Amino acid sequence: MNQDYIVPDNWSIIEEGFDAERVKSSESLFSIGNGAMGQRANFEENYSAETFQGSYIAGIYYPDKTKVGWWKNGYPEYFAKVLNAPNWIGIAIEINGEAFDLNTCKEVRDFKRELNMKEGWYHRSFTAVLKNGVEILVDIRRFLSLNEDELGVIQYEITPINQEATIVYHPYIDAGVKNEDANWEEKFWEALEVEHSGNEAFVVARTYKTHFNVATFMHNSIFSNGKNLGLAPENTVAGTDKVTFTYSVQVAKGEKSAIQKFGGYTVSLNHENEELISAARNVIATAVAKGYETLLQEQVAAWAKIWEMSDITIDGDVKAQQGIRFNIFQLNQTYLGKDSRLNIGPKGFTGEKYGGSTYWDTEAYCIPFYMATKDQQVARNLLTYRYNQLDKAIENATKLGFKDGAALYPMVTMNGEECHNEWEITFEEIHRNGAIAFAIFNYYRFTGDYSYIPEKGLEVLVAIARFWQQRATYSTDKNQYVILGVTGPNEYENNVNNNFYTNYLAKWCIDYTVEQLKKVALEYPSDHKRITEKANITEAELQLWRKVADNMYLPYSEAHDVYLQQDGFLDKDLVKVADLDKSQRPINQKWSWDRILRSPYIKQADVLQGFYFFEDHFSKAELEKHFDFYEPFTVHESSLSPCVHSIQASALGRMEQAYTFYLRTSRLDLDDYNKEVEEGCHITSMAGTWMSIVEGFGGMRVKNDALHFEPRIPEQWEGYSFKINFRNQILQVFVAANETRFTLEGTQELTVFVNGEAITVTPNAEVTV
Amino acid sequence: MNQDYIVPDNWSIIEEGFDAERVKSSESLFSIGNGAMGQRANFEENYSAETFQGSYIAGIYYPDKTKVGWWKNGYPEYFAKVLNAPNWIGIAIEINGEAFDLNTCKEVRDFKRELNMKEGWYHRSFTAVLKNGVEILVDIRRFLSLNEDELGVIQYEITPINQEATIVYHPYIDAGVKNEDANWEEKFWEALEVEHSGNEAFVVARTYKTHFNVATFMHNSIFSNGKNLGLAPENTVAGTDKVTFTYSVQVAKGEKSAIQKFGGYTVSLNHENEELISAARNVIATAVAKGYETLLQEQVAAWAKIWEMSDITIDGDVKAQQGIRFNIFQLNQTYLGKDSRLNIGPKGFTGEKYGGSTYWDTEAYCIPFYMATKDQQVARNLLTYRYNQLDKAIENATKLGFKDGAALYPMVTMNGEECHNEWEITFEEIHRNGAIAFAIFNYYRFTGDYSYIPEKGLEVLVAIARFWQQRATYSTDKNQYVILGVTGPNEYENNVNNNFYTNYLAKWCIDYTVEQLKKVALEYPSDHKRITEKANITEAELQLWRKVADNMYLPYSEAHDVYLQQDGFLDKDLVKVADLDKSQRPINQKWSWDRILRSPYIKQADVLQGFYFFEDHFSKAELEKHFDFYEPFTVHESSLSPCVHSIQASALGRMEQAYTFYLRTSRLDLDDYNKEVEEGCHITSMAGTWMSIVEGFGGMRVKNDALHFEPRIPEQWEGYSFKINFRNQILQVFVAANETRFTLEGTQELTVFVNGEAITVTPNAEVTV
Repeated sequence: MNQDYIVPDNWSIIEEGFDAERVKSSESLFSIGNGAMGQRANFEENYSAETFQGSYIAGIYYPDKTKVGWWKNGYPEYFAKVLNAPNWIGIAIEINGEAFDLNTCKEVRDFKRELNMKEGWYHRSFTAVLKNGVEILVDIRRFLSLNEDELGVIQYEITPINQEATIVYHPYIDAGVKNEDANWEEKFWEALEVEHSGNEAFVVARTYKTHFNVATFMHNSIFSNGKNLGLAPENTVAGTDKVTFTYSVQVAKGEKSAIQKFGGYTVSLNHENEELISAARNVIATAVAKGYETLLQEQVAAWAKIWEMSDITIDGDVKAQQGIRFNIFQLNQTYLGKDSRLNIGPKGFTGEKYGGSTYWDTEAYCIPFYMATKDQQVARNLLTYRYNQLDKAIENATKLGFKDGAALYPMVTMNGEECHNEWEITFEEIHRNGAIAFAIFNYYRFTGDYSYIPEKGLEVLVAIARFWQQRATYSTDKNQYVILGVTGPNEYENNVNNNFYTNYLAKWCIDYTVEQLKKVALEYPSDHKRITEKANITEAELQLWRKVADNMYLPYSEAHDVYLQQDGFLDKDLVKVADLDKSQRPINQKWSWDRILRSPYIKQADVLQGFYFFEDHFSKAELEKHFDFYEPFTVHESSLSPCVHSIQASALGRMEQAYTFYLRTSRLDLDDYNKEVEEGCHITSMAGTWMSIVEGFGGMRVKNDALHFEPRIPEQWEGYSFKINFRNQILQVFVAANETRFTLEGTQELTVFVNGEAITVTPNAEVTV
Repeated sequence: MNQDYIVPDNWSIIEEGFDAERVKSSESLFSIGNGAMGQRANFEENYSAETFQGSYIAGIYYPDKTKVGWWKNGYPEYFAKVLNAPNWIGIAIEINGEAFDLNTCKEVRDFKRELNMKEGWYHRSFTAVLKNGVEILVDIRRFLSLNEDELGVIQYEITPINQEATIVYHPYIDAGVKNEDANWEEKFWEALEVEHSGNEAFVVARTYKTHFNVATFMHNSIFSNGKNLGLAPENTVAGTDKVTFTYSVQVAKGEKSAIQKFGGYTVSLNHENEELISAARNVIATAVAKGYETLLQEQVAAWAKIWEMSDITIDGDVKAQQGIRFNIFQLNQTYLGKDSRLNIGPKGFTGEKYGGSTYWDTEAYCIPFYMATKDQQVARNLLTYRYNQLDKAIENATKLGFKDGAALYPMVTMNGEECHNEWEITFEEIHRNGAIAFAIFNYYRFTGDYSYIPEKGLEVLVAIARFWQQRATYSTDKNQYVILGVTGPNEYENNVNNNFYTNYLAKWCIDYTVEQLKKVALEYPSDHKRITEKANITEAELQLWRKVADNMYLPYSEAHDVYLQQDGFLDKDLVKVADLDKSQRPINQKWSWDRILRSPYIKQADVLQGFYFFEDHFSKAELEKHFDFYEPFTVHESSLSPCVHSIQASALGRMEQAYTFYLRTSRLDLDDYNKEVEEGCHITSMAGTWMSIVEGFGGMRVKNDALHFEPRIPEQWEGYSFKINFRNQILQVFVAANETRFTLEGTQELTVFVNGEAITVTPNAEVTV
């Protein structure tokens, strides 16, 4: 942790006081997004000190040339980069001829940022004294409209306090941008066309290689004391990739001058190339017609609707409350589930790191959140994303020597192609395939919507089962099937044999696929016929599958009575994390890779990830034994680690430990545990935070089409509540130390189980247990 | 194999006929070197088709910026590159105003290259018809002087055949060169100074970062029918990094015109920076004084001396004869052992690949060759090279978390710093440390010169023993010490546990070091005192070492009665190479890395490398059992593989197999088995070829200070002979099908053992067995 400057608040993220050292961290934390685009909290006005500029458009990426030591067969040709998109927020400002820049002001006071999560806007205000002595009060609000998702809105107000002033606004749009992490310092954007008329301007640019076309646009209006002055730009500079307007106003002392800037992008993913500018004109026309105030009201209303489905309240612990809302807010800013071509990048719209958008994080961590807080179509879209990429996953597996329609989904992808290249991950972290199958099972378990399986899911399951059957090899020595040379969820071990999690998941994938093939044969015979024909499934192949699944080796230690993380785990020098010198932590910064690999230290839940997915396959005593064996070796150096452990600590009734893990996951970015928030926020792990409360403290599970709860509460809290969209009815659960209350929005009675006891909840009538 | 254009010949490498497709391969095969510098067989005249330009200076390297996917702690900052040095051979030529270029001639006939290995020169001749109709006979001889090792000599003769012609020679020197494999397309050389006067010119250039200064020089003379015309250049163009002279001559039909060019480098490794040009002037003065013919005679004499010590003859098999001489010749071109700052790069002076000069190849493969064919000082220099780099090896180990003077020698180095970065190799292929200790043992065994150990070797041994003790960890599960997470000589397995070769070698290193500490304490007490004080060796530490060595785990299979390559070997799908579809070979080009890793296929001797080093620790029956178990899984996709297997096949009396392996190793480049000779020759494995004959067919071993032989002969051969410099006497061994003969140059009787029977060889009297 290296920051505590975020002011605790129930609904807002607040920073007070200006500190240039914190600018990059705050740019991450105050990021805004609307699912279609997003941006770091960069200043609109010029800023000459350190900043990390970032504006991102969902689905727009760049295939940067791969950078590796020695090429290995099967490596992808490129590494997908989240692209820094053209800048539309820029407003260079002069006050009495001096360029306004927070880095060069004589004084900046009362600096405050607020990210209002309830209403979905970002606000910044301060008083600045320029070198020329002019003192100004500045107040800026910015939001990315949820309703008009190609539109962003800025209201930038300046009030000269100590004297009359000439204010010159230079709003601009600029496609001459770069990525911070370009491998070869190449430019990613090629400007195609620049157009402007009146207060509107457009720059059309195209990404190299991927050829996404994007029109970046702006429309500006100048106000005085709230009244639109109807000014046209007095000067326009149009370059090949940038347009800048100039508006000058004489502003009396105490007069509130403002520029309203509407901007954003229209994109070839959603429009024809030749219609990008006209589409942008339409967005501007809509924005101008509605006006700033209406747009803001719509924004507040749209966020209210999101919170209505997904809010979690925590009483008596403001930091915990702020943490969980920040997590829910960021998830919704990143992905709203409207478009099955999109997915949830690990940094969302807050940074460039981890290029590529889709990891197994989506299936393992994010889907439960989206299933329970959105319409089920959203989770279905996330599953469909993988269905649509099945051909590419088969192609990827073929490249690696698999055949007959076996699929290996990529470790990192934008469009279904693999775009990561470290052999120990790309080729060996194959458990990701299992998470994709598990998500299909999990979707049906939660939503009860079986139709997805015959329609789409079964094809994915078959291709995955094929992969596992081919990937396993028979060990004459063990007289069982083994899976050699893998990396499990614990990336601190590479190229190990018989990772328990991977083997168990592989076996389960095959068993589950065989089961679904039977069920679909009975219940959806025409789908079954279509799929078996298309995929050319034979009885002989199914027998091969069953042979592998029925004889899968699972490493086990009699002495410790636990499943082993991998064959060689017990050979390690088993010194617990607690006995490790603190100066050695975090080991991923202090130790060389070989030392990490031969150590017993676990980056994130591995065997325990299996116990999380398949909790009902094991007794609580078994969970406890494995938790007690593995957690002491776990360093939690992945953002995805604390949440699973928090849930399991809750299940084991270890509330203090569960609470510690919870704080770590929920305020990972706000408190910057890993000293890296300036690179962006950890978006996908935020869904794990939600799980820590709902599945952890709330103990929510779905069994046999019914919701079950085992509510527990950390002693630091007075109460908490969460909402679950269960099969189109919204159940709200309030948990206090001595009672649990349920209310239901819907039309039908719902039977839920609390600690095993059935409770009937009637719509609009609170039930207390 | 993709070439059979090399004409079989006992003493020369010969190519007949011009084929542009073969130019790059021939540039490698016809490379010349003199230990201090070397160059690919690039044309002197301009050539506009595909070529790979390369001229190299021993010890001059460039630390290119490292290129990796994700950075791992402990990675070196740079990757050392063998530097393409300034060009001094260039002679642009015009004939009647037409630029002469083999790529644009109307006709090229009687094209012939010859690399005369006996005399150490490279010759090229052909008849060319230019587009302008002039027909010329061209004859070029080039050599790098062994006696004056800063000097290269070119004689370039042109005889117009069908008409009188104006010939313009533009000899030049040029520091504006690039590397083919630059990571970032940066320039590596900065030109500092250009000077010329009369027929001499100099360009001084400095390498960026490493700041090696090099003066490249030339001196030219123009001849007619063998008579020096005494011409001065009629024109000189001096740029910032290049000097070009122009000489025009009118040449009658049938008249032999020639340019003699003396060129080369003086280098800051051997001279003060400010004296480079004057040193170059001295080289030129010496060359001019001696003249071309004398220099050539000296060259022939110097090579005769080398061959006298190191020649191997093979009767009845020209290709085998040519192969072994090519190997011996290239080794001598690469390294002559005069300078302990130099070493033997895997491509020598024939290409850029594998940047860096020193691998474990030196200790494991090259030292036996140099010990037996040179003065023992040469091998001592190779050992001293590592002694001089001990501090850097300790630094390297410290970076990886080792302490108290433990050393890990780098995988690849120029100056003692690690310059390779793949974690599975850099951090895990630690057996290299063992080969360095073994070479010390081997040096003493062969030369009987114990003095190296108290003087230098023991310090190295102690630092290596420390490393092994610290690197091993105690497994409570096995109740023994284990070595986890290594890559053995078989690089087709990474991050394995308990690689037999590594564990065995580690144990041996400690045992041997303890033994030497005792011996030095007794026999060299003052050295012992100096070393124990300097290295701070305590009895407590020695006990730790012994505990590890005495309790080292060696993986073993009762069922197969063999040591296991590593803990997980038997879990693999044990399909033999013979049963693998040929379309799948070579697997390193056909398979993805993960598939290679989980396969049982072995790149090069691994367990068998241990049996090679420690042959006397095992019975012949054990060798046979291990050979029969592992060889069938070995794909020999390393140039270092066939030689060890050839030696062991010989020891087991399997002559047909031994011969097949021998051909593969000896003609690897000449027959281009791996389709890559255009990148350069495999220099270090050439020493393995020598071992295949001497240790393999000849069965030479040193036991208890005496030479032992078990001579065998492939049925394809009538006889073969080799020479051994054993303790300053040269023993020549002739082997025929039914007899073995010995002659000795020296002053003292020598007792050797043939198949266990003692034979006394008297100087200058042949003994037949």
